[in-house]
Amino acid sequence: MIEAERKTYEHILFERDGEVARITMNRPEKRNALSLAHMQELTDAFRSVGESREVRAVILAGNGPAFCAGHDLSEMLDRDPGFYRHTFERCTTMMTAIRSIPQPVIARVHATATAAGCQLVATCDLVVASTEARFATPGVKIGLFCSTPMVALSRAVGQKKSMEMLLTGDFVSAEEAERIGLVNRVVAPEKLEEATRELAAKICAASPLVVGVGKQAFYRQLEMPTEQAYAYAQEVMSFNATFADAQEGMCAFLEKRAPEWRGR
Amino acid sequence: MIEAERKTYEHILFERDGEVARITMNRPEKRNALSLAHMQELTDAFRSVGESREVRAVILAGNGPAFCAGHDLSEMLDRDPGFYRHTFERCTTMMTAIRSIPQPVIARVHATATAAGCQLVATCDLVVASTEARFATPGVKIGLFCSTPMVALSRAVGQKKSMEMLLTGDFVSAEEAERIGLVNRVVAPEKLEEATRELAAKICAASPLVVGVGKQAFYRQLEMPTEQAYAYAQEVMSFNATFADAQEGMCAFLEKRAPEWRGR
Amino acid sequence: MIEAERKTYEHILFERDGEVARITMNRPEKRNALSLAHMQELTDAFRSVGESREVRAVILAGNGPAFCAGHDLSEMLDRDPGFYRHTFERCTTMMTAIRSIPQPVIARVHATATAAGCQLVATCDLVVASTEARFATPGVKIGLFCSTPMVALSRAVGQKKSMEMLLTGDFVSAEEAERIGLVNRVVAPEKLEEATRELAAKICAASPLVVGVGKQAFYRQLEMPTEQAYAYAQEVMSFNATFADAQEGMCAFLEKRAPEWRGR
Repeated sequence: MIEAERKTYEHILFERDGEVARITMNRPEKRNALSLAHMQELTDAFRSVGESREVRAVILAGNGPAFCAGHDLSEMLDRDPGFYRHTFERCTTMMTAIRSIPQPVIARVHATATAAGCQLVATCDLVVASTEARFATPGVKIGLFCSTPMVALSRAVGQKKSMEMLLTGDFVSAEEAERIGLVNRVVAPEKLEEATRELAAKICAASPLVVGVGKQAFYRQLEMPTEQAYAYAQEVMSFNATFADAQEGMCAFLEKRAPEWRGR
Repeated sequence: MIEAERKTYEHILFERDGEVARITMNRPEKRNALSLAHMQELTDAFRSVGESREVRAVILAGNGPAFCAGHDLSEMLDRDPGFYRHTFERCTTMMTAIRSIPQPVIARVHATATAAGCQLVATCDLVVASTEARFATPGVKIGLFCSTPMVALSRAVGQKKSMEMLLTGDFVSAEEAERIGLVNRVVAPEKLEEATRELAAKICAASPLVVGVGKQAFYRQLEMPTEQAYAYAQEVMSFNATFADAQEGMCAFLEKRAPEWRGR
Repeated sequence: MIEAERKTYEHILFERDGEVARITMNRPEKRNALSLAHMQELTDAFRSVGESREVRAVILAGNGPAFCAGHDLSEMLDRDPGFYRHTFERCTTMMTAIRSIPQPVIARVHATATAAGCQLVATCDLVVASTEARFATPGVKIGLFCSTPMVALSRAVGQKKSMEMLLTGDFVSAEEAERIGLVNRVVAPEKLEEATRELAAKICAASPLVVGVGKQAFYRQLEMPTEQAYAYAQEVMSFNATFADAQEGMCAFLEKRAPEWRGR
């Protein structure tokens, strides 16, 4: 049993199905708004999963009519500057946790994802969306530009389309989101669960050590100039090649059999 | 009346319709080529708009058979190196003015946009194009590679397609330009004016202070590594949350009424 | 005759058809796997072409059932860490050679391109693919994450799709590869040769000096913050404007005649 399973959460559900952990935002009446307490629980759950050697993939889902409506505005009225800094810092900490853990995180988006909810989608490593999902960064409409969501959005989606979403606050459909690079695949609502599990199962079939090394290297090398990125990636890949799992994987491939991972 | 309205221009038209300024390149017989004098007027007009508290959105249009044909070649033959440096510096200054002013600039592209004209399109925050618009960076065909246009183009469009445009000089259609991220939306020629105004109206509905803060932060954070971008965006968003317009916006949203912006 | 024509190669074919050089990976029984010796020959051939003033465009093709299957796994079992470092360094050297030579390199992809073979595609300046081509970075399936391929892949393709290819190892079709920015154009198998030659011919019509300056500047400016990229591109373009080929090109354009390049 991993740490997250021992805990009692108020705002999220934590389940585990073999090697797949599922974290479900569970404030349906609040459209899964990201109150400080909710963000704290999500951060805890992601970090706990990150420590686990049993979990190989994570699904992030939402209960109720929305995937996630962003920050909890009822918390945000008439606060002092320190409160706002604290809130956005907590939010960045949560987003960073998703990127920092070795397991890939798949967003399972069944409905609207807005503002920091859209940022969650842009931050997850992979995204499966229902045709009923919609995405927006509508902060501009309430006088609070989606500045932190834009960091994740503008790194997944091109300049012109990011800017349009941020300046108009308009929704983009799931199909459009796939076209512009925010979403990996779009399926009918009744296929969403199956398609998400299928993607998670693919990841679970690989060596978890290798997946973790690859995920970390992906985001690190993206921040580097190309020459430096190659120097870094060469070291990562050389080290990876010495893993027992790489030797087993190459051997199994040449012998035309399935590999048996030992996680080292 | 804003500064730009008081001025007499030779190469451009400056109009204002309420909160929307329209700057029209008006050298139809020259396909709106960017002579030094033309670029100076455009730069002046953008800067003047940038100083105005009345203007909330800017439309950049072109009169005549082309949107803009790029630099004025008749000016560029047999000049000394200092002239070329001066010309490209003036051009960068104009492009930088578009990005630096707080108001979003929408390119209204009715026809061909080539070389520095295509760069203008890539530089504007948003782009509405007619199905009759076409885009190219054909400098390579006349022995003068579109090196400064490529800075804006390759930041809006992916590597392979940018490189193809730059190496072949071929036109891409409006539909293709939308697909590759150079254009936000494509409409029938008779809908171009309406679609452009509609987009400008959406921007005018938001707090101009908030829009200006957001536009500036967008381009700044794009230049930063992700961690630094988050640190920066958190400060921007925390500050934004203390604005009267943010408090009013959140309040109006929770009370399900339209907000009343005060621009502070 | 250029240097590469004088040489005897074991793993590649080198041909020249006027201004177009063709380098063909010729280990069909090995699916053109990149052994150390094969990579060395490719690097030599690209460098030799880079020194030539006769060659204006390069086509990279593959013989046999695959375009290129990536590293040669039969070479990679049970080796010491130094061997792996050497192999990936040689691979990066080859990729860097493609980017460093002044002539554009067009990948002519008739079939599957996987792992470092997919990296070759992502590294070439332009890519023409047959509808029968497919692309994957399947290292994760054999315990050796495609870390160096990801450097090129993630700079051509958006975050979400790159990550999906790297984490699942699944194939993307030629059409999908075009949609996500990995490929410039997709044609029927029987049109592949013609479409590739057509693209090469377009490049050969331009001044080779100007093309070389432009290709180099493209990759250099992409690594810079925008302001610095403009400062750099202004110098490149000012220098370019003083070339005899630029003066001839502008003159020919204004006189509505074809330019005659002198390569200076």
